[in-house]
Amino acid sequence: MALMETGKYSQGSVLGSVNPDLASERQTASFSVEKLTAWLDGGAEHTRLRRAVVEAIERDPAFSRENQYFQSQNERYEAAVRKAVHLQKKMDEMGWTDNGPEFKYIYRALSGDLAFLLHRIFIRSISMLGSDKQIAKWIPLATQYQLIGSYAQTELGHGTYLQGLETTAVFDITTQEFVLNTPNISAMKWWPGDMGRSATHTVVFAQLYVKGKCYGLHPFIVQIRSLQDHSLCPGITAGDIGPKMNFEHIDNGYLMLQNVRVPRENMLSKFCEVQPDGTYVRRGSQKINYFTMTTVRISLILDEVVIPLMKACTIAIRYSVVRRQSKLKPGEQEAKILDYQTQQEKLLPQLAAAYAFYFINDYLQELFNRGYREIQRKNFDMLPELHAFSSGFKAMVTQYSTSAVEICLRACGGHGYSLLSGLPSLYTKIVASCIYEGENTILFLQTARFLIKCFMAASTGQPVPPSVTYLAAVTPEKCPAKNKLDFLSPDIYTEAYQHMAARLINSTAAKLQDLIQSGVKKHDAWNQCTVQLAQAAKAHCHYITVKNFAETVEKLETQPGIQKIMKHLCDLFALHGIFSNAGVFLHDGYISGAQMDMVTASYLDLLAVIRKDAVPLVDAFDFTDKTLNSALGSYDGQVYQRLYEWAQKSPTNKQVWMLDYSQATSALARAEVVYFSFNKSNTDKSKVE
Amino acid sequence: MALMETGKYSQGSVLGSVNPDLASERQTASFSVEKLTAWLDGGAEHTRLRRAVVEAIERDPAFSRENQYFQSQNERYEAAVRKAVHLQKKMDEMGWTDNGPEFKYIYRALSGDLAFLLHRIFIRSISMLGSDKQIAKWIPLATQYQLIGSYAQTELGHGTYLQGLETTAVFDITTQEFVLNTPNISAMKWWPGDMGRSATHTVVFAQLYVKGKCYGLHPFIVQIRSLQDHSLCPGITAGDIGPKMNFEHIDNGYLMLQNVRVPRENMLSKFCEVQPDGTYVRRGSQKINYFTMTTVRISLILDEVVIPLMKACTIAIRYSVVRRQSKLKPGEQEAKILDYQTQQEKLLPQLAAAYAFYFINDYLQELFNRGYREIQRKNFDMLPELHAFSSGFKAMVTQYSTSAVEICLRACGGHGYSLLSGLPSLYTKIVASCIYEGENTILFLQTARFLIKCFMAASTGQPVPPSVTYLAAVTPEKCPAKNKLDFLSPDIYTEAYQHMAARLINSTAAKLQDLIQSGVKKHDAWNQCTVQLAQAAKAHCHYITVKNFAETVEKLETQPGIQKIMKHLCDLFALHGIFSNAGVFLHDGYISGAQMDMVTASYLDLLAVIRKDAVPLVDAFDFTDKTLNSALGSYDGQVYQRLYEWAQKSPTNKQVWMLDYSQATSALARAEVVYFSFNKSNTDKSKVE
Repeated sequence: MALMETGKYSQGSVLGSVNPDLASERQTASFSVEKLTAWLDGGAEHTRLRRAVVEAIERDPAFSRENQYFQSQNERYEAAVRKAVHLQKKMDEMGWTDNGPEFKYIYRALSGDLAFLLHRIFIRSISMLGSDKQIAKWIPLATQYQLIGSYAQTELGHGTYLQGLETTAVFDITTQEFVLNTPNISAMKWWPGDMGRSATHTVVFAQLYVKGKCYGLHPFIVQIRSLQDHSLCPGITAGDIGPKMNFEHIDNGYLMLQNVRVPRENMLSKFCEVQPDGTYVRRGSQKINYFTMTTVRISLILDEVVIPLMKACTIAIRYSVVRRQSKLKPGEQEAKILDYQTQQEKLLPQLAAAYAFYFINDYLQELFNRGYREIQRKNFDMLPELHAFSSGFKAMVTQYSTSAVEICLRACGGHGYSLLSGLPSLYTKIVASCIYEGENTILFLQTARFLIKCFMAASTGQPVPPSVTYLAAVTPEKCPAKNKLDFLSPDIYTEAYQHMAARLINSTAAKLQDLIQSGVKKHDAWNQCTVQLAQAAKAHCHYITVKNFAETVEKLETQPGIQKIMKHLCDLFALHGIFSNAGVFLHDGYISGAQMDMVTASYLDLLAVIRKDAVPLVDAFDFTDKTLNSALGSYDGQVYQRLYEWAQKSPTNKQVWMLDYSQATSALARAEVVYFSFNKSNTDKSKVE
Repeated sequence: MALMETGKYSQGSVLGSVNPDLASERQTASFSVEKLTAWLDGGAEHTRLRRAVVEAIERDPAFSRENQYFQSQNERYEAAVRKAVHLQKKMDEMGWTDNGPEFKYIYRALSGDLAFLLHRIFIRSISMLGSDKQIAKWIPLATQYQLIGSYAQTELGHGTYLQGLETTAVFDITTQEFVLNTPNISAMKWWPGDMGRSATHTVVFAQLYVKGKCYGLHPFIVQIRSLQDHSLCPGITAGDIGPKMNFEHIDNGYLMLQNVRVPRENMLSKFCEVQPDGTYVRRGSQKINYFTMTTVRISLILDEVVIPLMKACTIAIRYSVVRRQSKLKPGEQEAKILDYQTQQEKLLPQLAAAYAFYFINDYLQELFNRGYREIQRKNFDMLPELHAFSSGFKAMVTQYSTSAVEICLRACGGHGYSLLSGLPSLYTKIVASCIYEGENTILFLQTARFLIKCFMAASTGQPVPPSVTYLAAVTPEKCPAKNKLDFLSPDIYTEAYQHMAARLINSTAAKLQDLIQSGVKKHDAWNQCTVQLAQAAKAHCHYITVKNFAETVEKLETQPGIQKIMKHLCDLFALHGIFSNAGVFLHDGYISGAQMDMVTASYLDLLAVIRKDAVPLVDAFDFTDKTLNSALGSYDGQVYQRLYEWAQKSPTNKQVWMLDYSQATSALARAEVVYFSFNKSNTDKSKVE
């Protein structure tokens, strides 16, 4: 009768003592979690530094995210402003600087919930696009927060296609000013962060007109709000664009300009200038600017995509060993849901992808550092490859990771749907990464254009960048694997990916040429191939990711414990990709139906192997409970207790209705009394007229 | 210089006059939109009735959804209560009844934003599970709203696996009462709608114990709040479970019971009863109850899944002919984004799926009506098939539609990410359908169990239900298609689906038997096949959906205009499925690589064909602007103007900061002044302690 005893509800004290179902998972780790963490961090000294930064931030109540899931858009914005201001103080106090080794850990520790991020872009754009004189004037003002900057590029009518932007800046030779205008509603600046409420200044991108001639897009520093009272400047209409799926903490804004005049000196003029007599002078190379745009795409991969995916995996996998549901064997205890093959098949490939993308990020960083060194030596040869890589990998990693986070969310059932799980906000935030900094389909097509060009060059014997020499390589026509174990050989699967990617690019190039030769115009032919071109670009990136994972594992020979489990994850990532995209491998018979059955068998076998280390593998990501901010994912696994305690804090539980409705005798009166009492007692709500 | 003229921002007056880019799409429809609408509604008289209901509701300001995207959780809940109360009055006023022909259109017109939906389930469960005496006592109280009911099944620790529920009800023979308890935290009721704040009564599912013996799960009517002052009853702890990804308008709640006593008469006793001396009596058949659970899954498909998908398609497709971005041909005007093949490939398959699922819903309704008639004649033969269908189709349609809505959202770029587009809330709501009323993976496995059983029976010559006779049918080993046009033959592709589904079930059954024969225990063998079993079940449902679509098109011979476009959509749905799941068709060589190229060619050709009718095809869904509640999807296509006007209403634009920070001279003081002023002036926010 123990079941029926009451008064057994756990008190707060249970939080912190690890749930035995989670503790047991940690006792059987096949490797040292601490060693893996240190390796991921790039050495134990980095781990120590990261932990010190995280601890300093989490100890400070000003950075608390405790009430985040209960906050309105207004409240989240205010919290982000408060944190941004406090962070400056904290950095002074701790001796952290923007260029110091601690800096990259700060954003991670704060999970990005900061205002004034666009202020940094404002500073960066002036540093890069401004003349020495402009830098000397504006950068000190900005770094000392004498103004708050923003960056106004996107318009209501145009995003990724920059040439289409419509805002105009006409040079008025008589007053030596530029006159900025929003010529119609679609030209309104729309989306820029920090612009809805915070910014006093912004860099406006506008079509430059001098003496009636358009010189294309140029950047102008424009003051939009008073430095005396924060009111809008004359000719400026600006505000917040309203509620979004996430990013409530950022005041994405709109901006209309009506005959707004700025002095000639406010056009950022490192690369081009309008002289007092209206002469337009272009100087230096804009290629470096072009390079900078591509680096932004690479720089967001870790913080905005891979780390959120790692968090989602941590939450979902820890929850899946705490949650017990139904029985695997009749008569036994209910099983941990991670013991079901279907749950393993949902989560473990996402875990493998998180590692794969963490490593591809390292690869890209290295590639870009190398590119940067070359560019400093005035060698721009790598630019097309770097642009193609930044586009394709940004698109592939964001798209894959968005699906992965969604899978993690759904794998947690109803509790995953609660904001308190942390998963909905991870999803609603990561999904935006598929759109911002270049829409993914457009990015894939840019990569495809590069690949087609390289393929054409390679097939006529011209030199191509090392990353794409494979396009012209001769590979066997059939996969040589004879049994399921052969598919655990990186050579076998890497070659399969290579063959498949090369085939897709090859066959799409052939289709393109056939169409053109049959008389279809070039742009129409291109459009008719874009579905396949995008697929080919994705296949290329997938191949490089698998290859890089395999090479990363190879380099781990001094750490055999870690190497073994990483090898399993690499195999899983590769075989999951073949299993889920079977068609492109089977299409030309490179992999036969019988071999696909071997792939499937090895893939399913691997799930059971990695399942044993699943919790240690997410523990190694080393997220604190405060960073995860999840009732399901905490280190102690006290899932139900935490859900219950956190729910108590909800504003929906803050109102008490003690009311007299004994007089309500008619059919509807009772419900009405309930409604009106809610309405009466609820004085603390945000009113909307 | 026309570009630079100012003062041209369109005023409100532009709303309602159709954007020419959208108007032109309607002039070239290949069919009569009105006729298609009438056919979808089941006849012009149904269309008239539906429109009358929608109009009556939309004319009534009490049902307005205008401010929905700006509301807090509290406000959405209050609005839902207000609407539920008002709806009762409206129904009286209009002469609508719960069983009248108007009823099904009301929910559609209100887009489900109603409180007290669980009150209906409370009523339904008493009607079905209660004795005549219980029905006579409780139903009038409920229908007159003398109480507000809820339905408490799910617990913190158990959802789909009902046997695992832990709440207990012990019969106390001395007082003739049941004593209900929540024995530990995981047994807390968690998620029931209307329970967090509204309900006064609920049906609690608990394990029944009589004289120490457990009789399994039984339903008990329990009062949880006072009918005098709405305070919690003794022994009851209840509240709201906090913020969710959506459904803010519903007070999903938790409930703990500590020695809560209810009279013996409160156990719903149509099928079983505890007599005063403690004798447990079971009577009648519980099969009908089992049937009712499956009908709930079918009943949600239209309103909660297909209609939201239709809305998402309407919004995304209308936006895609208004949005112009980049150029298809150099020198020309920027192209409508729907003219890009990649955009067509994103949206048009989702449109085809919306139609496919609308038709499969008709098919399922008919099947279930037939089943219901049989059951009333005490013939329960169809039950296993009905259960398998309700499980598999619920899972397939919700999973597919969730992805489809997400694709629509992402296809609208940045503006799709704004809540004002309507797409984020469609997504965050539909994703829940993958979890509630049975988690999808578990449901697929239930279908798989049925299919494996039928396959075994069929292969030994035993009779099986008509829907699965194909499992034992002999089909050709190779697809007979010779060119891409052959793949526009429903016979060709339906047979390909049939072959593929039968093969997957067949091969998984073989794997299962091999494992068992090799000594693996039955339950382990089952678990090791579940990834493939779920895939096979999905393939079966996909096949039936394609087949049903083709049959629906065939029956349209009297309406050739509509039949033609429906045939195109059917082809697209089928070929998209083959294109995106190429592996399972190529695996055994049923479709060859060369044939897959034909599939791809026909599939891509179809996109260009259907693109011409895309707008008429969504217009035919006949959603009003108020129903869509989308700045991107309105009938007039005035996308930018509407985004701008709606953004003005956001609470984030309601605060004006005119402040003096001229004294702020230090580095951070200015930002701090901004922050503190926000804080000071912002008195209308919802506080969280």
